[in-house]
Amino acid sequence: MSIDILISEVGPRDGLQSVRSIMPLEAKKAWIAAEAAAGVTEIEVGSFVPAKILPQLADTAEVVAFARTIPGLTVAALVPNLKGAEAAVAAGAHKITLPLSASEAHSLKNLRRTHAQVLEEVRGIVSLIEGLPADRRPRFEGGLSTAFGCTLEGDVPADKVVQLAGQLMAAGCDEVGLSDTTGYANPAQVKGLVRRVRAEVGEHALSGLHLHNTRGLGLANVMAGLEVGITTFDSSLGGLGGCPFAPGASGNIVTEDLVFMLEAMGLRTGIDLPRLIEVRRILAEALPGEALYGFTPEAGLPLGFVPATREANFA
Amino acid sequence: MSIDILISEVGPRDGLQSVRSIMPLEAKKAWIAAEAAAGVTEIEVGSFVPAKILPQLADTAEVVAFARTIPGLTVAALVPNLKGAEAAVAAGAHKITLPLSASEAHSLKNLRRTHAQVLEEVRGIVSLIEGLPADRRPRFEGGLSTAFGCTLEGDVPADKVVQLAGQLMAAGCDEVGLSDTTGYANPAQVKGLVRRVRAEVGEHALSGLHLHNTRGLGLANVMAGLEVGITTFDSSLGGLGGCPFAPGASGNIVTEDLVFMLEAMGLRTGIDLPRLIEVRRILAEALPGEALYGFTPEAGLPLGFVPATREANFA
Repeated sequence: MSIDILISEVGPRDGLQSVRSIMPLEAKKAWIAAEAAAGVTEIEVGSFVPAKILPQLADTAEVVAFARTIPGLTVAALVPNLKGAEAAVAAGAHKITLPLSASEAHSLKNLRRTHAQVLEEVRGIVSLIEGLPADRRPRFEGGLSTAFGCTLEGDVPADKVVQLAGQLMAAGCDEVGLSDTTGYANPAQVKGLVRRVRAEVGEHALSGLHLHNTRGLGLANVMAGLEVGITTFDSSLGGLGGCPFAPGASGNIVTEDLVFMLEAMGLRTGIDLPRLIEVRRILAEALPGEALYGFTPEAGLPLGFVPATREANFA
Repeated sequence: MSIDILISEVGPRDGLQSVRSIMPLEAKKAWIAAEAAAGVTEIEVGSFVPAKILPQLADTAEVVAFARTIPGLTVAALVPNLKGAEAAVAAGAHKITLPLSASEAHSLKNLRRTHAQVLEEVRGIVSLIEGLPADRRPRFEGGLSTAFGCTLEGDVPADKVVQLAGQLMAAGCDEVGLSDTTGYANPAQVKGLVRRVRAEVGEHALSGLHLHNTRGLGLANVMAGLEVGITTFDSSLGGLGGCPFAPGASGNIVTEDLVFMLEAMGLRTGIDLPRLIEVRRILAEALPGEALYGFTPEAGLPLGFVPATREANFA
């Protein structure tokens, strides 16, 4: 079945890195398999960072190896540097993303590297990938984090984001993405920044947004992205990774609500929503102390709801 | 100061009618006065329905009388029928809204009247208003509830909504509004229905949307409304009226998050957001058992946040 919008589930990476509990490997496998069975075709399953920094993701290589056995699934992983990329390639990830923080203060805190140093890592990763046989080459995305503002620097100039996007592509990335790491983005800003970055790197080099729902604007920002032609959105099942001290203040946008919105709008995601909602049970059981977010799972689907997929099947 | 978007606070009516607690009159007064002081210029302060049906709103006449003493505030009230309109006029409401449910099944359950019977009440109210001296005539809105779907009927045909909008204007309403009573609306539907209703009744006869956040799409639907020129949005402080059995499942869209989104987009609301957020304290104290919603109050404003109002003041 063809789809209109690609949803990239990032819960096993972005969600799990933000909660204190460590999810057992078997539960991660069950989660990923169940989401894939519900129709999710891309999952960021982990991050190749030192286990002492993120013990929640220490088993990423095993998770990648498992996820690769699921037919049709694009297995994505985050890498902080060349060493991480080598591990990701060895594990067999189909896609790798290196985060470059548009705020240099954030880059220094997050990766302990300046922009110039991160771009040097990018070039190293490109060399690594170019040396691989074609069937083992992962797609390589430069993820511009804090692209819409930073908790350390405040406003992040759009000029800086545009410049870094150009530098990532010049360094050899296949594509760039924009991340609202801090939940600062608003719909007008999303439209404006997507247009400006696309003018710099070309339409096809920017297809994805990674949005958070920190201030409740997540789906409004998706709506803004749709208006300017974005076709890939990251999201997290149950909004996993929300702050336990701020009720309702989820981190990533909630996959269930995102799928509901898109399907209700007639945009095919390929995802079976009731089946997706059932996957929450795996999270609830494996992470008993963690809050799960999402409005649609609580409210239920509207009476007589017809997903876009079904209409497409009838067409 | 001129504004770009009018926010109509409906918490004292739609919020309070949905919670079991009865807010004391003095707290209602403090709430309304504090919101007006924060820059809110229109508040729906109650509903003229029998006290045995909604004891929470039994003091609406006194609330209207108090709210009228606040300079510059438009005092709105809901009326279910001619009798309610007579009480609203006697109390001195500046604006009255009569809900006409696009779903006839819902209309029968909510007002115990068919569409034809509600339109008859509308004509009676128009006669009442036309007989008043000009300075005592309230603005009269026909509010099309369940315009985006109904928990009893499911899908509500757009043709029916368009037809009823035309009938409300023909019966003498000054304007119509569209209400997503059930939280069924999606952004594509909002755009489409607003365009169709405006094609029927004229652009100026439809300026407002009343949206709920039941499935998390509230602000995305606002974004869709903005795209097609809507300039008035109803919302409720603290999302008051959310279902206590569904965490996070708020009823009305949250005024604080709405103001944050609009101001961040550069759209002036005239509302001082930090001051608005402080008003939550009045709700928390007066309704100790009730949940308050909202992401922005929990997360706080972004570092270096500049509201649209301030830019306008500097201009």
